[in-house]
Amino acid sequence: MSSPKPIEYAEANPAVREVFDDIMSSRNVADVNNFWKYLANDPKTLKRTWQSLKEIMAPGALDPLVKEMVYLAISVSNNCGYCIASHSAAATKAGMTPEQFSELMAVVGMANETNGLVNGYRVPIDPAFKK
Amino acid sequence: MSSPKPIEYAEANPAVREVFDDIMSSRNVADVNNFWKYLANDPKTLKRTWQSLKEIMAPGALDPLVKEMVYLAISVSNNCGYCIASHSAAATKAGMTPEQFSELMAVVGMANETNGLVNGYRVPIDPAFKK
Amino acid sequence: MSSPKPIEYAEANPAVREVFDDIMSSRNVADVNNFWKYLANDPKTLKRTWQSLKEIMAPGALDPLVKEMVYLAISVSNNCGYCIASHSAAATKAGMTPEQFSELMAVVGMANETNGLVNGYRVPIDPAFKK
Amino acid sequence: MSSPKPIEYAEANPAVREVFDDIMSSRNVADVNNFWKYLANDPKTLKRTWQSLKEIMAPGALDPLVKEMVYLAISVSNNCGYCIASHSAAATKAGMTPEQFSELMAVVGMANETNGLVNGYRVPIDPAFKK
Amino acid sequence: MSSPKPIEYAEANPAVREVFDDIMSSRNVADVNNFWKYLANDPKTLKRTWQSLKEIMAPGALDPLVKEMVYLAISVSNNCGYCIASHSAAATKAGMTPEQFSELMAVVGMANETNGLVNGYRVPIDPAFKK
Amino acid sequence: MSSPKPIEYAEANPAVREVFDDIMSSRNVADVNNFWKYLANDPKTLKRTWQSLKEIMAPGALDPLVKEMVYLAISVSNNCGYCIASHSAAATKAGMTPEQFSELMAVVGMANETNGLVNGYRVPIDPAFKK
Repeated sequence: MSSPKPIEYAEANPAVREVFDDIMSSRNVADVNNFWKYLANDPKTLKRTWQSLKEIMAPGALDPLVKEMVYLAISVSNNCGYCIASHSAAATKAGMTPEQFSELMAVVGMANETNGLVNGYRVPIDPAFKK
Repeated sequence: MSSPKPIEYAEANPAVREVFDDIMSSRNVADVNNFWKYLANDPKTLKRTWQSLKEIMAPGALDPLVKEMVYLAISVSNNCGYCIASHSAAATKAGMTPEQFSELMAVVGMANETNGLVNGYRVPIDPAFKK
Repeated sequence: MSSPKPIEYAEANPAVREVFDDIMSSRNVADVNNFWKYLANDPKTLKRTWQSLKEIMAPGALDPLVKEMVYLAISVSNNCGYCIASHSAAATKAGMTPEQFSELMAVVGMANETNGLVNGYRVPIDPAFKK
Repeated sequence: MSSPKPIEYAEANPAVREVFDDIMSSRNVADVNNFWKYLANDPKTLKRTWQSLKEIMAPGALDPLVKEMVYLAISVSNNCGYCIASHSAAATKAGMTPEQFSELMAVVGMANETNGLVNGYRVPIDPAFKK
Repeated sequence: MSSPKPIEYAEANPAVREVFDDIMSSRNVADVNNFWKYLANDPKTLKRTWQSLKEIMAPGALDPLVKEMVYLAISVSNNCGYCIASHSAAATKAGMTPEQFSELMAVVGMANETNGLVNGYRVPIDPAFKK
Repeated sequence: MSSPKPIEYAEANPAVREVFDDIMSSRNVADVNNFWKYLANDPKTLKRTWQSLKEIMAPGALDPLVKEMVYLAISVSNNCGYCIASHSAAATKAGMTPEQFSELMAVVGMANETNGLVNGYRVPIDPAFKK
């Protein structure tokens, strides 16, 4: 196996094309992102991941913008460069303003800081939080 | 140094009490959580952390519930047990419903999954995401 | 200290050359990877790391392909770009097929997802797992 | 929302019971683990997670034991206590010997060590690994 | 929101310039690093972060070199490329020698390795460590 | 394989006892910590880990207290409970004061916070840091 290569629509098999078609029509775009082109090396994972994502990111008790911002927050905390770039774009498309982005980053930074402090001081859980 | 111990209000110095008082009046509670009692071992960090948190978590471009859910999401992704317990409570207090919690967890799980897939397939950033 | 620089065989001291020689003969290659050239800035760490790696990655209760795939899985989960590239190559050399790579990535992604779900739902360990 | 509580079969709705039934018959066990009882708070995530897991962990290009060991390795690296306990049990059930466990842990430890060294020395990817 | 852009002094508002001026005079440099230029998109986070950093990194019970090396160690363990580069430079400016860097990296690598081993073997805390 | 169990000196084989003896005499203690008793399930990893640790933690360009504090910092950032407890004890034994501990935690927290901010703002490395 050499390093993974993207699979373009023109060379994709029918199972992959079916997923690509659904992504393009669901998102109203003319092409899929690199993420999907690389996942297409494994049609089962491509299909499962797209179906899961579509179900999870649909409007529900949380609106799509909040979901996209949470996705971005996790990607930032995990330092996944591709994910940060793609979910910044997705959140912006869903309506995230620069001010919301800035506040989101402030929360992410602070959460990572206090998570560390809690660990270091070995803070026991307050009984009230266990109920 | 033995393991860190909490500092209760009764034994706290004036600098610590001032922060404790502000936390209790800001949150309208009769006592502070263990997190603050342990941080009180370092009055400067106690004060700085509380001031930062108050500034960051205040209503702004994002509402407090969204901020609390993002805080919880990061804590879950980092597996900080205390933080998960305390920010679950805080998010609930800010209005998070069980349905919102469940959707939040689904997004966190999915983000961690696709972050891994992106890394493994070495997906390059789409030029459109770099603008 | 400027940024770390690689140390090539021609400029290496005898202690470094001895390790480089052993790597090249053990792996039957004409040169060592960048990892070793950078570690050569610290001959003790170079030697200790190579000896540990040789001992750990040798055939044993687990065959070398499984070990290389586990190494790759951890590197993916940690998002270490260099490690992903070098251990993808090593796993491929040890016999990993594209299908095995794809299944490996699916497991890594799923493990990261359910690890997050477990944390968020604060799932207690089943008594049966503690025996 | 108080802290998440498990949902037992007797109190579960039909959608949850259907998943529980499938888990019990697929694994030939009399009850499901806590993980599933907690996920049952969100029937959609319960169903999606079980279906994904069943698909991913099925025998394929990698045998089930290897998959379970990789799952365990990621859980160890992420320090997910529940996941370590449950996937240690699952790997053992799939045939993992104590010797295999020990070698697995040695690889996980080593991977985490060298990932750190690579980051610190800022090792650039060898051109050969990019092909 | 397109991808974040740096804010240069010439285009900065007075609140940002005030922080930039303080950074430049405190560090005796003619310009601020990219980190500050990007944070300047959020003047409140810029100011808060700089004030926190100045307070935390000042000489105290730990000398500045030790603090910079710890900062670098965490950045390496988190694989934050920018942070590794900038804090390697800062630690070097504070007096870190190549030998100290190498020993620091060895400790970081070893800590990450044994953290993993501890997790995998589920080692319980010795009673003596809980006092 | 049931869950890992500690191996006490009385039941240990000669290879394990040799390592235990060296740990006890090197550290001038009457028994080894749980970490070593669990690693003893794999005598090769026990021996390799102890030898590596002894080499890495010995006085060198960095003094033992600094090394122990860095070890603790990484363990806190990784949230390894056992490691935090044992390396807090080791750092204290090496001379860490409560004030040093507090400053150490402040640096760890801050580093985790700014690592997140850097990722989110996608800050490019300053050319000066690449030299």
